Amino acid sequence: MSWNTFGRVLRFTTWGESHGPALGAVLDGCPPGLALTTRDIQPYLDARRPGQSKYTTQRQEPDQVKILSGVFDGQDGKQRTTGTPISLLIENTDQRSKDYSEVAKAYRPGHADYAYDRKYGFRDYRGGGRSSARETAARVAAGAVARLIIPEVTITAYVCEIGGDAIDREAMNLDEIGNNPFFCPDAWAAKRWEGLVDEARKSGSSLGAVVECVATGVPAGWGAPVYAKLDADIAAGMMSINAVKGVEIGDGFGAARLSGEQNADPMRPAAEGANTGDPQFLANHAGGTAGGISTGQPVVCRVAFKPTSSILTPVETIDAQGNATEIRTKGRHDPCVGIRGAPVVEAMMALVLADHKLLDRAQVGER
Amino acid sequence: MSWNTFGRVLRFTTWGESHGPALGAVLDGCPPGLALTTRDIQPYLDARRPGQSKYTTQRQEPDQVKILSGVFDGQDGKQRTTGTPISLLIENTDQRSKDYSEVAKAYRPGHADYAYDRKYGFRDYRGGGRSSARETAARVAAGAVARLIIPEVTITAYVCEIGGDAIDREAMNLDEIGNNPFFCPDAWAAKRWEGLVDEARKSGSSLGAVVECVATGVPAGWGAPVYAKLDADIAAGMMSINAVKGVEIGDGFGAARLSGEQNADPMRPAAEGANTGDPQFLANHAGGTAGGISTGQPVVCRVAFKPTSSILTPVETIDAQGNATEIRTKGRHDPCVGIRGAPVVEAMMALVLADHKLLDRAQVGER
Amino acid sequence: MSWNTFGRVLRFTTWGESHGPALGAVLDGCPPGLALTTRDIQPYLDARRPGQSKYTTQRQEPDQVKILSGVFDGQDGKQRTTGTPISLLIENTDQRSKDYSEVAKAYRPGHADYAYDRKYGFRDYRGGGRSSARETAARVAAGAVARLIIPEVTITAYVCEIGGDAIDREAMNLDEIGNNPFFCPDAWAAKRWEGLVDEARKSGSSLGAVVECVATGVPAGWGAPVYAKLDADIAAGMMSINAVKGVEIGDGFGAARLSGEQNADPMRPAAEGANTGDPQFLANHAGGTAGGISTGQPVVCRVAFKPTSSILTPVETIDAQGNATEIRTKGRHDPCVGIRGAPVVEAMMALVLADHKLLDRAQVGER
Amino acid sequence: MSWNTFGRVLRFTTWGESHGPALGAVLDGCPPGLALTTRDIQPYLDARRPGQSKYTTQRQEPDQVKILSGVFDGQDGKQRTTGTPISLLIENTDQRSKDYSEVAKAYRPGHADYAYDRKYGFRDYRGGGRSSARETAARVAAGAVARLIIPEVTITAYVCEIGGDAIDREAMNLDEIGNNPFFCPDAWAAKRWEGLVDEARKSGSSLGAVVECVATGVPAGWGAPVYAKLDADIAAGMMSINAVKGVEIGDGFGAARLSGEQNADPMRPAAEGANTGDPQFLANHAGGTAGGISTGQPVVCRVAFKPTSSILTPVETIDAQGNATEIRTKGRHDPCVGIRGAPVVEAMMALVLADHKLLDRAQVGER
Repeated sequence: MSWNTFGRVLRFTTWGESHGPALGAVLDGCPPGLALTTRDIQPYLDARRPGQSKYTTQRQEPDQVKILSGVFDGQDGKQRTTGTPISLLIENTDQRSKDYSEVAKAYRPGHADYAYDRKYGFRDYRGGGRSSARETAARVAAGAVARLIIPEVTITAYVCEIGGDAIDREAMNLDEIGNNPFFCPDAWAAKRWEGLVDEARKSGSSLGAVVECVATGVPAGWGAPVYAKLDADIAAGMMSINAVKGVEIGDGFGAARLSGEQNADPMRPAAEGANTGDPQFLANHAGGTAGGISTGQPVVCRVAFKPTSSILTPVETIDAQGNATEIRTKGRHDPCVGIRGAPVVEAMMALVLADHKLLDRAQVGER
Repeated sequence: MSWNTFGRVLRFTTWGESHGPALGAVLDGCPPGLALTTRDIQPYLDARRPGQSKYTTQRQEPDQVKILSGVFDGQDGKQRTTGTPISLLIENTDQRSKDYSEVAKAYRPGHADYAYDRKYGFRDYRGGGRSSARETAARVAAGAVARLIIPEVTITAYVCEIGGDAIDREAMNLDEIGNNPFFCPDAWAAKRWEGLVDEARKSGSSLGAVVECVATGVPAGWGAPVYAKLDADIAAGMMSINAVKGVEIGDGFGAARLSGEQNADPMRPAAEGANTGDPQFLANHAGGTAGGISTGQPVVCRVAFKPTSSILTPVETIDAQGNATEIRTKGRHDPCVGIRGAPVVEAMMALVLADHKLLDRAQVGER
Repeated sequence: MSWNTFGRVLRFTTWGESHGPALGAVLDGCPPGLALTTRDIQPYLDARRPGQSKYTTQRQEPDQVKILSGVFDGQDGKQRTTGTPISLLIENTDQRSKDYSEVAKAYRPGHADYAYDRKYGFRDYRGGGRSSARETAARVAAGAVARLIIPEVTITAYVCEIGGDAIDREAMNLDEIGNNPFFCPDAWAAKRWEGLVDEARKSGSSLGAVVECVATGVPAGWGAPVYAKLDADIAAGMMSINAVKGVEIGDGFGAARLSGEQNADPMRPAAEGANTGDPQFLANHAGGTAGGISTGQPVVCRVAFKPTSSILTPVETIDAQGNATEIRTKGRHDPCVGIRGAPVVEAMMALVLADHKLLDRAQVGER
Repeated sequence: MSWNTFGRVLRFTTWGESHGPALGAVLDGCPPGLALTTRDIQPYLDARRPGQSKYTTQRQEPDQVKILSGVFDGQDGKQRTTGTPISLLIENTDQRSKDYSEVAKAYRPGHADYAYDRKYGFRDYRGGGRSSARETAARVAAGAVARLIIPEVTITAYVCEIGGDAIDREAMNLDEIGNNPFFCPDAWAAKRWEGLVDEARKSGSSLGAVVECVATGVPAGWGAPVYAKLDADIAAGMMSINAVKGVEIGDGFGAARLSGEQNADPMRPAAEGANTGDPQFLANHAGGTAGGISTGQPVVCRVAFKPTSSILTPVETIDAQGNATEIRTKGRHDPCVGIRGAPVVEAMMALVLADHKLLDRAQVGER
């Protein structure tokens, strides 16, 4: 599989740097006949878009997506996918490359600066180039198209923890997610986070976060053991997101502390008058997969975002010549990258699930 | 990409079921000229082999590996890899299929039974067939060959937690790993675990565990952003191991609770008289990768194993006809699958690193 | 994609050398539930098997296939594919490695000897190792399974030309193919070839041949533009067969000599009372594909086999030290490798078509 | 491998339709540090560009390429590849969609119209959409970058036959290729072709052609048996080009008519005072590959282009409703698509060779 391509039969390739003229994605393998216009994509890009609150970077990017290929007017006049590659383009407009003069000279610890220089011999230091979180805009655009392939599935990601301050599971209400700038399902936690994140922002510090993602409506049978397990692909997709350092399915690391009895997900026959013959599960410690295949329960994963390394506190480092120096990262940065990670996690989940729907159809046929 | 193949240029395919005649791996893309005999592979299979202590399943499998292709006598008379596919075969000898009569009738909650039936329409219920942990023997064999490709790297995996009882980092000593049946680097923890695991075994219960893996000697520059990030491939490889529910790189979920200052890995110029020009890092919260590329620091990951669902306590479930029933899983099972997970985690790490060494050589050339 | 794997969703990997203990194939992505025993595979291996007439190599190989994984007894007691990798093994029994002492010393012009040494630094010179036509036995075995995936398709390959002596299209009768040792559909040509090939055999010379393959019953819609075109995959598969130097679809090179009018394949509405709504084509210059997608007409390709380089006439060459020498290739060889190429071409066609049936189902759904 | 992506480690993805806003390619896996500007690409696009003589379509397309990503200023101020994906964009400017009103109604025999409709349910009928030869502009752009990866190789493609009228091998002179509108190395043939092609153009007919491609400077050792054979990848790449119906390596189908003695490529020690230790080959029937690996001789292939199906003579066909009708293809078309095929064949050869240089480096290391 190539470096910048993800997926097995529904494959997307992203390209572009933070401060280049544009970035984009090419989505290949999309079924034909799906109604698709930029209106199906833009809302997801808007959700991820920076500069919408004081809690994210102030870089102003309209992130308007263009569809350059793969669609045509169907007989009903609606613009539909043709089954050919869908090329999505997003222009960069608000680059401030001068902000990066210092970054060009020395390595920001925790950033990809040093690693890119060591690998490639030099680097596009403007905003981290390819290692910038701006790359995730292309995933969000591709993910919006992927959602059209799996209308039976509902995907919701939200921030469940910032800087160690977690939401209250009792107080959780998915309707709250849109009511605060943190994609937070707990109104009280959202209130607390305002102070927490604002303080980090003012002090030029940064905070880590945990994003949880739940996909409901996934039928039993998606996932292909043993190296294309549904959860293995989710893990790869999530770990490829900037600043992500951990991925859990279901109880994840918590399950390692349970006994077999505690971790069991007992099953019962379908409920009386249920509209499906699917059995009932009395628990979902597994997070919706068994043996790498979906069970019909909600697919649940949690993703850990580290605090961004872009902080104002001077940190010991070296310059390109290997001499000792210090660096304070100015420029515009997210005090908590995990917040805007929520729409990205949703997009990756959509891309993995849509890919596996098609993979399953290839091997087993229509469900 | 295919279902049962892992890797990008160094690719291996595993095949075989728990109770079939044999299982194996085909490793493709291995460089030519490496001295290879079964003696390079067998010790790793022996480490993973069941039935060696009362803390693992009593199934007796010699797990003798055969090399069926890809090697030939070099001019020095040594058997060497030829650059063609290396076919590794391991025969199954101690199947007791009768143990599975009950499993054939009803689904074991937490096992792949139900998911496989829903996906494929029927399943090989003997020992879980393809979903059995026996598949990991093939990975361990392939991993042993992968190690020969990266002699500069030392990989060590150990169990750092069982049933919530963690090792003492102060008391940690890698030399201890071989002195106890738990791959435990803390002699005192190993003692405690004897009672813990034995109790679970006697009561027919099971325990989860956490395996940590450290790879030293990885040069800066391995890993290919953005979807072939070194850590993304590690996450995929680890999550594809049976019973794994979580993967962390470096501080992982812990990093989500740190501030940018706390999480920083400051750099200093190479130490006086160091034999490399590599800078010193004052910390390794990142776990050896930045932007998906190795930094030259040790690559560190942690893997969460759930408790096996094979327990003697009756659990509510349904039979193939969807009727309510109960199941107690008899047969021979590991009270803590995470223990034997350590050699498997080591093998997956070796396979991912060897693949990325070759990938990096393809794009950037010799280091 | 890896070196020794072919296919996109139905993928097979072959391994093994001519004089190793065995060779085999692992077929991944096969749909579950197909009735499969060795009896479905053996007849195709027997057709390809050497030593059956004086017109092929006298090496005696039973080529008995073993199925090591991927099958299990269904509820009807029939052994069926489970959807997991199918591992096929064929043991080598009649190696005569001593025959190759001379080959070890010098390069046979036209063989892979020199190229393998230059690439890998050394080679398994016994029977050409991995470059031996024995590798094709594994393809034939995998191809037999692929046929089960496309029961709607009938594939027939035959030799249409040996040493420049072509069949008479008027006299062509597919029922004749099994009545002669040349897979020849023209009884008179078969008679002529007896003398032609026998003479080459006696004089230690060799002859080239052309194999034609026709697949009927392929529905319109298989093939995925633009780099997974059905004809592009056929070309890759055929050109990967030993000794193949050319591939044509439909009129192929002949089409380059036609005008647009001559090359047209006019269409007409479905015939009265036809059992399908498919249109009638008044010609098939295109060989059943347009834009890389099947049209519903027979898929037709022709494959050119060079004469084997293993001849008794001394040829100028160099030894491993680069010194001038001469070589006469003794040992047992096919005077015309193209003859046994027919079953291999059939197998590759089956593998490509089955792969594209599943690929099409992934993107477009059931037809 | 996905539908619209080609290559193994150097992978490119093309997107775009003939009458969409633009088309492009994303090239992934390119080594870092190569000096690259649009000036390295434009000349190859210009060579392929339509409307330059009366012998090609009159569609006027500047085919100006833009580099949207993957390059940055190196320390020497030169724009260099960074090792990240290179996104190349070419805008469509001279669409005349109204020309296609008739095509929308009925299927052009020999075109992809019918096949696309049957596969995808509907199609972008404007200029054939994705099945248009305009897609090859993206390959030519990607191929220009690939050439920078293999500076040691010289690739030359030329038309050696049009409408059955072949060049005279004796009169062949590569310097002539640029002196005529046919990429013809034989000045006399070029003269003859003027009349031939002009007549076809005037009468609204079309002609087939054969393009030959020679790559010199390819070192021994490129190509990865058995399914990534250098010649197998060349065959796939060439057959994926619009209108191509056949591919030959070396003597190709001619070799099928030779005896082993005639087809031999005898070897001799390196010539006195040769600057390489490479042996001399006394012939090159094999076309530079043995066992799928380059031998160090020139790599030679021939590609057959059918006459375009776009002719003014009415042809029997059916409309979308399946009713009988006739079609005359108006609009602007190449009387001989094979002519402009030459730069495309060169580009595909460059892409395959560059990919295999990197693949070989991955497995075997620097040569």
